Amino acid sequence: MTPAATPAYRRLSVEERRSQLLDAALSLFAHRAPEEVSLDDVAEAAGVSRPLVYRYFPGGKLQLYEAALRSAAEELRQCFDEPREGSPLDRLSRALDRYLAFVDGHDTGFSALLQGGSVVETSRTTAIVDGVRRSAAEHIYRHLDIDDPGPRLRMTVRMWITAVEAASLIWLDEEKQPPAEELRRWLVDQFVAVLTVTARRDAQTEGLLGALAEDGRD
Amino acid sequence: MTPAATPAYRRLSVEERRSQLLDAALSLFAHRAPEEVSLDDVAEAAGVSRPLVYRYFPGGKLQLYEAALRSAAEELRQCFDEPREGSPLDRLSRALDRYLAFVDGHDTGFSALLQGGSVVETSRTTAIVDGVRRSAAEHIYRHLDIDDPGPRLRMTVRMWITAVEAASLIWLDEEKQPPAEELRRWLVDQFVAVLTVTARRDAQTEGLLGALAEDGRD
Repeated sequence: MTPAATPAYRRLSVEERRSQLLDAALSLFAHRAPEEVSLDDVAEAAGVSRPLVYRYFPGGKLQLYEAALRSAAEELRQCFDEPREGSPLDRLSRALDRYLAFVDGHDTGFSALLQGGSVVETSRTTAIVDGVRRSAAEHIYRHLDIDDPGPRLRMTVRMWITAVEAASLIWLDEEKQPPAEELRRWLVDQFVAVLTVTARRDAQTEGLLGALAEDGRD
Repeated sequence: MTPAATPAYRRLSVEERRSQLLDAALSLFAHRAPEEVSLDDVAEAAGVSRPLVYRYFPGGKLQLYEAALRSAAEELRQCFDEPREGSPLDRLSRALDRYLAFVDGHDTGFSALLQGGSVVETSRTTAIVDGVRRSAAEHIYRHLDIDDPGPRLRMTVRMWITAVEAASLIWLDEEKQPPAEELRRWLVDQFVAVLTVTARRDAQTEGLLGALAEDGRD
């Protein structure tokens, strides 16, 4: 996300203006905790007046934060949107590459978003983040051709998604070490490993693993 | 968490009274957003007068919430406190049994606590929950005789702890299925599986895994 470069004097449509303000807000949230970003900061970053920011987000900071979160959530969802080409593990790898690029590009903002503990966190913002998790899980089932994941497979996939989130936060804390590509391979290997553990006690996962084993791994 | 059943007329010590109020508060926070719980509600649930609640928690609702959270965190820490008897995986199993019993006993309150999304969630309450996670990781390193865990081992352990948390929340959502003992075995197997994946790229973890393999598993 780059700060909006559109000159303020150009007449923007309502949608363009809104998206310009969201971009400015996200770029600020990317490097500071949301409660440390004021509407003044957003106005300054977008090169517009404070009243204009208020006109678009009359609910103030919380409304802007939620809108920015929704927009980030939408971007994240697009990361998971992977064509059905190559093996499922290749697709998972490509989706993870995009996800890690998103984490890399939004660093502090991403941490603030997921770690909670922000004074503006509400049940609504939590629901937005949970929606992204659900969407990630649904993409995984779709690519694995699973229509009706059983409880053990669902628990495994959701645990792995949570572990990936934790890994992303730790990765940002550890100055992005190991390199993204190594982290991605590690996460894919963990995915296979936890499925293997579940396969020992769940026939659906066992069948799935058989199909994955026929994959050509990179 | 059961609402405090102690009749109000029995004379309690300061510590008993405090803990009775904390129990009542936790059972309310478990079913409603903390900001929707009034001190009146806590007084009613505990069968005591409102002034008495204020005498113990003069800072009001947030103070009570934080105290309840600290008390739950302290109980959780005690779950991890395991003597150095038997193999490390046996010890992990026993600690997980106690942890799952805690989750079982506190169900909705545990979810509310970990899932966040409450408006009273602050960086302080987040720090309490993070402290429990850190404590769990330290117990693991101690039992594995690791003084100085490297970044890959640390990331693996923290990912597993997060995955265990996620599993606990899902387990509560899924009417505590599979049975606690099966879940515990599954989580221990996952622990070994993710360490095995990390061992392929980390000498410290590889050495550790060699030591674990010599364990007699139950």
